[in-house]
Amino acid sequence: MRDQVKQYITKLQSQIIAALESVDTTEAGAKFVNDRWERSEGGYGQSSVLSGGTHIEKAGVNISVVHGKLPPPAIKQMRADHEGLPWTEATTSLPFFAAGLSLVIHPRRPEAPTVHANYRYFEITEDQSAEDAAASRPAKILAWWFGGGSDLTPTYLFPEDARHFHSTLKAACDPFGDALYPAFKKWCDEYFYIPHRKESRGIGGIFFDDLSLHAHKRLPSGGRPTSLEDIWAFIQSCGDAFVPSYLPILQRRIHPVEGIEKPLSDASESEEHKRRWQLIRRGRYVEFNLVYDRGTKFGLMTPGARIESILMSLPETARWEYCCELGEQEGTREKEIMDVLKNPREWV
Amino acid sequence: MRDQVKQYITKLQSQIIAALESVDTTEAGAKFVNDRWERSEGGYGQSSVLSGGTHIEKAGVNISVVHGKLPPPAIKQMRADHEGLPWTEATTSLPFFAAGLSLVIHPRRPEAPTVHANYRYFEITEDQSAEDAAASRPAKILAWWFGGGSDLTPTYLFPEDARHFHSTLKAACDPFGDALYPAFKKWCDEYFYIPHRKESRGIGGIFFDDLSLHAHKRLPSGGRPTSLEDIWAFIQSCGDAFVPSYLPILQRRIHPVEGIEKPLSDASESEEHKRRWQLIRRGRYVEFNLVYDRGTKFGLMTPGARIESILMSLPETARWEYCCELGEQEGTREKEIMDVLKNPREWV
Repeated sequence: MRDQVKQYITKLQSQIIAALESVDTTEAGAKFVNDRWERSEGGYGQSSVLSGGTHIEKAGVNISVVHGKLPPPAIKQMRADHEGLPWTEATTSLPFFAAGLSLVIHPRRPEAPTVHANYRYFEITEDQSAEDAAASRPAKILAWWFGGGSDLTPTYLFPEDARHFHSTLKAACDPFGDALYPAFKKWCDEYFYIPHRKESRGIGGIFFDDLSLHAHKRLPSGGRPTSLEDIWAFIQSCGDAFVPSYLPILQRRIHPVEGIEKPLSDASESEEHKRRWQLIRRGRYVEFNLVYDRGTKFGLMTPGARIESILMSLPETARWEYCCELGEQEGTREKEIMDVLKNPREWV
Repeated sequence: MRDQVKQYITKLQSQIIAALESVDTTEAGAKFVNDRWERSEGGYGQSSVLSGGTHIEKAGVNISVVHGKLPPPAIKQMRADHEGLPWTEATTSLPFFAAGLSLVIHPRRPEAPTVHANYRYFEITEDQSAEDAAASRPAKILAWWFGGGSDLTPTYLFPEDARHFHSTLKAACDPFGDALYPAFKKWCDEYFYIPHRKESRGIGGIFFDDLSLHAHKRLPSGGRPTSLEDIWAFIQSCGDAFVPSYLPILQRRIHPVEGIEKPLSDASESEEHKRRWQLIRRGRYVEFNLVYDRGTKFGLMTPGARIESILMSLPETARWEYCCELGEQEGTREKEIMDVLKNPREWV
């Protein structure tokens, strides 16, 4: 599985980058720059970043394949969702392997939504004897699971974009059980919630974790993939759905569309006004990522973690105003998106 | 003490606002806007905010006077520093009172430093009998303490500004014990540290907490104010020092100064370049406040807290670039300030 995941995320990263670069064919259109890094504790990553593009303001498509030792408190915490993990007072650190792809795209036009996706595989093995290691015999796997998801963060609401994004994800989930999309859509709404603002970060998508062979707290026993092959096929189905879920939206929002972006009032359609609202919303994105996102928090606390990769998700620019009035007045496009962020909708 | 603190912070707020408004006498110079709010759980606050000023981009000078009930886990945690607090399994919530002033000023010019200050009084009392309350007899005080400090966050280093700021604070501390400034300067350097960046938020100042009659972990028994009167005089001395510590710096940095702001290289002196570096540094300010600042974290987790007052400290605009090269090249003004942020200096 390690090799399959490694191969798949490497290929997926290239496909996504090629798709994004195809949107920006202007001469000034920035290209992704590859940045390969090694982790001194074990493993490597490849960050592909774009900044200053004509249509994409900032984007990062990252893969990482790392391994190391998991300390006893972390193992203890993971036991709740993974029956195979041992736990006695004598449990020592155990080897782990983690590989995944994560991406965030912040387009330039306020009409084009930000998107985030992440798919990852995690494995914990027994400590290998020196003899087994010398003979290249693989260590016994104690627990493995997949996690991931994808979610959309628009500055302005275009219901057809939300429907397209969600229905593409639903179509990727459905072959593996009817329960998957509804459960993971709900989980996504719960996860990307900013309690102190009482609003969601965006209009959701799917989010899941701890997907393995054993029982799952969010899924009925009959409604989920139950073999390693099926779970792996499900993950690839979700990963493959990224480009079709997002690219058509990006393509239709990078230029003004006659008849769709109807101005609700003239002043609210000025570029300056729209940019201001976009930056306010990006401020909320920063608040979620720095205060609540588990991956970011875990990363910031991990000694030796690569900070630039962890904070790659932050927008290029964000704005905070005291008691900003935008989003409160009925009949405005800002209020329209706020209503959805306050009360998540079903889009499919 | 409650009344004295209330009166003092109200007066100090007016003085600081008047001083800041005196800097911006242009016609376009924005004025502070007062926003009084009530807390449904008890108490009130007055936020004075300025945005879009000619010289000050965003500023907030806030006072709050609140009371309520402190739950047992919070009392238990506070016991470490406050001997007077009771703790048995039967301890129930206790009444608290808190009053303080906090301010953050983000000037517009990259040469003018951001400043933050906060002075506060905290009191925990016994539960009052209905009879005592009816007779307006004050409840018995179980513990009280003061906390506070002030620190400077420059985008570019001007050693004379750092020396002026620190020496003004030192002069405010010294009459109350020689140990105060060195101990609180060190505490400030430790507190405003961003572990994941391995750098300080700024060039420090003073920071202290739990200042009361009993022994203090940071101060020798002979080197600190030991009566309520002396502690209160010390707090006022620090509060009064704010305007003289900061205003002269603001005044001399809002216009280019011949012969001081020597360009180390031409390109690095363009307004665009300086603004970019300023916004990168403001991104770090956001990272500290959202990820580490105890007051902000506590506020965000408190049900019913006033989010706009808590996040008033954030800059109007902040920026994140992937692997930003600024601050790394020897001989640049960006590297000059980074060296100080990586290795805090003694300024007095």
